[in-house]
Amino acid sequence: MKTYLDCLPCFMNQALRAGRIATNDEQKIKKLLDEVGMLIQKIPMENTPPETGAIIYEIISEITGNNDPYQKIKEKNIEHALHLYPELKQKVKKSDDSLLTAIRLAVAGNVIDLGVDKEFSIVEDIEKILHQEFAIFDYEFFKQELNKAKEILYIGDNSGEAVFDKILIEELEKPVTFVVREIPVINDVTLKEAKQIGIDKIAKVISSGTIAPGTVLDYCNNNFLEKFKNADMIISKGQGNYEGLSNVSRSVFFLLKAKCPVIARNLKEKGNDIILKGMNVAQSS
Amino acid sequence: MKTYLDCLPCFMNQALRAGRIATNDEQKIKKLLDEVGMLIQKIPMENTPPETGAIIYEIISEITGNNDPYQKIKEKNIEHALHLYPELKQKVKKSDDSLLTAIRLAVAGNVIDLGVDKEFSIVEDIEKILHQEFAIFDYEFFKQELNKAKEILYIGDNSGEAVFDKILIEELEKPVTFVVREIPVINDVTLKEAKQIGIDKIAKVISSGTIAPGTVLDYCNNNFLEKFKNADMIISKGQGNYEGLSNVSRSVFFLLKAKCPVIARNLKEKGNDIILKGMNVAQSS
Repeated sequence: MKTYLDCLPCFMNQALRAGRIATNDEQKIKKLLDEVGMLIQKIPMENTPPETGAIIYEIISEITGNNDPYQKIKEKNIEHALHLYPELKQKVKKSDDSLLTAIRLAVAGNVIDLGVDKEFSIVEDIEKILHQEFAIFDYEFFKQELNKAKEILYIGDNSGEAVFDKILIEELEKPVTFVVREIPVINDVTLKEAKQIGIDKIAKVISSGTIAPGTVLDYCNNNFLEKFKNADMIISKGQGNYEGLSNVSRSVFFLLKAKCPVIARNLKEKGNDIILKGMNVAQSS
Repeated sequence: MKTYLDCLPCFMNQALRAGRIATNDEQKIKKLLDEVGMLIQKIPMENTPPETGAIIYEIISEITGNNDPYQKIKEKNIEHALHLYPELKQKVKKSDDSLLTAIRLAVAGNVIDLGVDKEFSIVEDIEKILHQEFAIFDYEFFKQELNKAKEILYIGDNSGEAVFDKILIEELEKPVTFVVREIPVINDVTLKEAKQIGIDKIAKVISSGTIAPGTVLDYCNNNFLEKFKNADMIISKGQGNYEGLSNVSRSVFFLLKAKCPVIARNLKEKGNDIILKGMNVAQSS
């Protein structure tokens, strides 16, 4: 997905939000906003938003000296999600369509990761998404491909969300490679958090090599690119990965909640929708 | 009011919104955002937000060649408000406290000016504000000062809103000087719109001389400054004027809806509140 005009003020908003999490020093945050302001003119609109995200989060690290500002938030999210895990596993077990329930929970994970201190609304959000209608729902296609697949590449997004991904991975009943970011960026899952959650016990965990808050192929390592090319089935979680991969020439299943209006427009949906989109492209040779 | 960190991304948002109203040319809008991005580092945080607003709206005029992008929106707002005017006058006439009802309507005007295409919700908003509790309500002080005042300086804000100001001006039953902006900036009221509304028939209309979307004394002309210094009572409408005048050393009544979180924080209120704040400062000599 290209950069839209709406993304430009949003980069400033994101920098402010992340800057405040990284430091209490208002002057450093002002300097950060100055730098991001000057960056705007240098952003090629044909770039994907996570490419700019990578630059912004590098600036945040440099200015604040904090290279993992979301560390505590990630820990809190994971702890909370792990606390819910047994109950959610029960929901999956008891449901008529356990795969679909696990898919819905994986989408719910994409939402609740933001609600750091909203204990009660997280449970509400899960309940809502368990019954919400999908705006795009390529479930039959998903099941067909899953049946055929010998192994699956599953690209993770946020850290707390990865607990919910674990539930879906368990329901896939196929060998899964779970993909994490190379270094901390926003609250995204890295090898460290994947191990905390125990995903390494049920899947092979690899880094895509990217330092961006989304999967940008130009930034990825050869190991990931090889797997990305050859995987029988790819599941991509969340907005950042969608932004990075929506134009690649291979089939990908995108599983996300469309939280920003630009993505909703790009998906031709009205916003706040839940999406299971199977991008059906002939695999490049 | 000084510039807060939150104002910086907001300047970008405002530039995008106004740029889209001024032109359909995406490249011009990109250039505008580039310029505003570069401006961020030059903004002194001790400046009031409307001072930066003035620079941004000059950049918009320069880049788009459109020096009154909101013209059609202003006309539509005024037309709609004038259509409601007879019914609102009846509401005032029938109410137990006609001055207070007129004050409430003047606050309602501060809201509905934004709702360009939302015909139905405008009527709802008015009804809501007619019954909403004020977060700051210096009404007794207002009435005392009004009783003593020989003449009143009334500083207008948006164009559609000025129709509602007309209703309040009529209820004040004192000689009023109504203050407009020097040139078009956002949808703010200038001499042209004040005349369209007929405010010149019930009050003296003067320009403050400012090109900012708020009353910034450094930008004002001597005629206004003289009146500002000597007026018995000053009523200031809306956020932009509050931002410009909240730290001046003279008594001002601020009448507004706190629509942005920074202003709500500055007023120590929780947001979306309606405000009648009497700033009681000994007049500077």
